[in-house]
Amino acid sequence: MMPLDLGEDVASRAIDGVRRGIGSVGELLDPVEVYARAVWSLLVEPGDSEAGALIAAVGAAAALRVVVDDRGDALDRARARWMPRLQPSAVAAALDAARRCGAQLIVPGDDDWPVRFDDLEAHAPVAMWRRGGGAPSDAPAVALVGARAATAYGEGVAADLAADLAAAGVVVVSGAAYGIDGACHRGALSAGGATVAFLAGGVDRPYPRGHEGLLERISTTGAVWSETPCGAAPTKWRFLSRNRLIAAMADAVVVIEAGWRSGSLNTAGHAATLGRPLGAVPGPITSAASAGCHRVLREFDGVCVTSAADVLEMLGAGAPARSDTGGGATDDTTRLFDALSPRSARSIDDVARRSGLARDDAAVLLGFAELEGRAVRDDDGAWRSVVRGSGAS
Amino acid sequence: MMPLDLGEDVASRAIDGVRRGIGSVGELLDPVEVYARAVWSLLVEPGDSEAGALIAAVGAAAALRVVVDDRGDALDRARARWMPRLQPSAVAAALDAARRCGAQLIVPGDDDWPVRFDDLEAHAPVAMWRRGGGAPSDAPAVALVGARAATAYGEGVAADLAADLAAAGVVVVSGAAYGIDGACHRGALSAGGATVAFLAGGVDRPYPRGHEGLLERISTTGAVWSETPCGAAPTKWRFLSRNRLIAAMADAVVVIEAGWRSGSLNTAGHAATLGRPLGAVPGPITSAASAGCHRVLREFDGVCVTSAADVLEMLGAGAPARSDTGGGATDDTTRLFDALSPRSARSIDDVARRSGLARDDAAVLLGFAELEGRAVRDDDGAWRSVVRGSGAS
Repeated sequence: MMPLDLGEDVASRAIDGVRRGIGSVGELLDPVEVYARAVWSLLVEPGDSEAGALIAAVGAAAALRVVVDDRGDALDRARARWMPRLQPSAVAAALDAARRCGAQLIVPGDDDWPVRFDDLEAHAPVAMWRRGGGAPSDAPAVALVGARAATAYGEGVAADLAADLAAAGVVVVSGAAYGIDGACHRGALSAGGATVAFLAGGVDRPYPRGHEGLLERISTTGAVWSETPCGAAPTKWRFLSRNRLIAAMADAVVVIEAGWRSGSLNTAGHAATLGRPLGAVPGPITSAASAGCHRVLREFDGVCVTSAADVLEMLGAGAPARSDTGGGATDDTTRLFDALSPRSARSIDDVARRSGLARDDAAVLLGFAELEGRAVRDDDGAWRSVVRGSGAS
Repeated sequence: MMPLDLGEDVASRAIDGVRRGIGSVGELLDPVEVYARAVWSLLVEPGDSEAGALIAAVGAAAALRVVVDDRGDALDRARARWMPRLQPSAVAAALDAARRCGAQLIVPGDDDWPVRFDDLEAHAPVAMWRRGGGAPSDAPAVALVGARAATAYGEGVAADLAADLAAAGVVVVSGAAYGIDGACHRGALSAGGATVAFLAGGVDRPYPRGHEGLLERISTTGAVWSETPCGAAPTKWRFLSRNRLIAAMADAVVVIEAGWRSGSLNTAGHAATLGRPLGAVPGPITSAASAGCHRVLREFDGVCVTSAADVLEMLGAGAPARSDTGGGATDDTTRLFDALSPRSARSIDDVARRSGLARDDAAVLLGFAELEGRAVRDDDGAWRSVVRGSGAS
C-alpha cells in the first residue's frame, strides 16, 4: 500500500522548481531524501519528536518506508497520526503551490539550512519552506517579539530598536503579526537591513492578510520562512510551534512589549530552554501591555534592554557587567581622584600607579565613581574625572 | 589640654533630657560612654572608619582620651581631623538643641539602636539622633528611594507602593527629599503605616524646608533619624553617607525612579555592598527619569519590582520564583481544537486527519473536551467545538 513512488526519477521531478538556487552542499543531496522530507513536512505537525527521532535514525526516505510498510510495531500510534495525510495528490499540490509562489524547499544539509536549528534536536523541523533568500545566514540574528495588542510606546520602541540593530548588521527575526512584530520588521526595513519572518501557515498564505504587502517586502530583501507546506492554514498549535523556530533562529531573544499572558512569553520560554540570551524592554508598571516583559525580567531573570547597545552586549559576552561597588571607602576614593584628571584620560594601570591603589581596587572604585557621575570612561577604556558644580543626594 | 570633663556627674548632667524614654538596656549604659558618643558624633564625619575602629577597640570614652592625650602615634592624621571640633561649647550646644526639639540620643546597646547597623561594621555610626520613636524596630523595613526630579508616573508609583507596603505592616524608610522620597513617606502615612526618614543634617533642621510639615508628621507617627548632631548642616558628603544608613536600616531596597546618575544609585550601591535584596521599578525606556532604575536591573542584577507583592517576596525567600517552561512539549489538546470548528460538525476521522492525531487519541481527547464543556457531539457522532472567549498566538 505504498501511496508514493520514492524512485529517484520521480523524486527529482517532484522537487524540481522548489530547489532553484540552493547552495553547493544542497546540490549534492540525494533528491529522494529531499523529496521524502517534503512529504514529511506534510505529514507531521511542527515539533513531532517521534518523526524527528525516526528521521534522524534512518533518514527521511527510509523513515517514510518504515511508516508505509505497516509493521505493527512501536510506531503504530505515530503511524496512525501520519497515514491519514499521506496522499500523493496533497504532496504534489504542496509542491506545485511552492513553485507558483517561488518558494524553495530547504532541508538539513543545504547551505541555507539554519544550523542554529540543530539546537532543537528531536524538535527540529524536517524541512523548511522559504520565500526570498536575502538574509545572510552567518550574520548575527536577534528575535524581537511582542504582542499584537501593542501601545504606541511599544511600537515606537520596536521600530527604533529594530532599525538600530539592522543598521548594525543584525538580522531581525520576528513573526509578522500585527503590533510589535510588524513594527520590528518595518523598523529593520526602514534601516535598509535584513529581516526574516516565520509564519505559522504556508509561505504562500500571507498572514495576517493585512501584512501581505509587508511580507512581500520582507521576502524581497530578506526571507519569509515556514515549517508548514504551502497551502497549510495557520492554526493555534502552529503559532506556538513556530515560536520555537523564531527562538532557535536567533542568537538572542528580546520581548519588546507583551501582556501577562502574551504568546511572546512562549517564545521567551523556548529561548530559555535553548539557552539563548533572553531580554525584555521594560515599560510603565501601570501599563498592562508591559506586564509580560516584567515577568521575563523577574521570572526568567531576563536582561533589562533599553537600547540596541544592550542587545549587542547580549550577543557578545552574554551577560552584562555586574557592578561591584565599594561601600564606605573614603581615603581610597580621595586617592583615586587625586590620580584622575578632568582633562587627560588615563588608563586604569596609570590611575593605579598614580594613586598607589591595587589595580583591581582602582577598577572597582572607578566603577563606583562612574555610577556617581564623578568619572567617565572613554571608548578606549581610559578614565577622566568629571568636574561638577554641586547639588546633594 | 583635656577640653572636656568626662567625669560621671558631668556626663550624666550633659546627656540629661536627650535620653528620656530610652529602653531598658539603654538605662544601664554608662553615662560617660553615652556622653562620649555624643561628643564623637560632633567630631567625625559620617562613616569615619578610623573613629569606628578606635571606639570599637577601646570604647567611646577611652577613645576620646586617646585622642586628647596627644601621643604622636599613628592617629595623628585622624586627630588632625577631629581636634578642631572638640569644643565643649559646641557639644553643649548640640545637646541643648536636641533637648529643645525633643530629640533623643541613641547609642549602641540601647533597645532602640537599630541592630541592622551592625552590618556596617567599622562604618557604623557612633551615635544616632532621633525625633519620634513610633516605628517598631522589629517590623520588616523597606527602603524606597528615588530622585528628586521625579515624574508624575514615578510619584504615583511611589505613593501606591509605599501605601500598600505600609498597610502590610512594613516600615517605609526613605530620605525625605522632594520627589520620590516625599511621595513614599506620604504614601505610608496615608495608609496609617509607619515611616522613618533619615536626614543628612541635624534632626532639628528640617530639610528640605518645604518638607517641614511632612517631617513633623513623620516624627509624630514614625521617626526622623540623623547621624549628625543637632545644628549640623546637610552637606553633600553627609547626603551620600546618610544613604548607607537608609540601606542598612532596611531589609530590602527598591529604587522607584531615578535618572542615570541619581544619588539613589549610591543607596543601591550600599544595598549591594551590605547584601540587602535590591530591586527597581521599571519605567518607559524613553523616560530619562527611569534610566537609573534600568541600570539597577542591568548592572546590579536587581529584582524587577511591579507591585508591593514583589517587594514582600524580596523580604521572604529572597529570590523570586523562576519559571520553568517546557520547550518543545506537544499539546495534543491544542491540536485537537485547531481541528474542530464551532460551526461545522466533523467526524472523528476528519478531526484525526486535520489534527494529525491518531484516531484513538482524538476520540479520547474529544471525550475529555466534552466533559469540560469545550466540545459537543451531534446525534450522528460528529463533533463541534464550543465557543469561549479566547484568541490565538
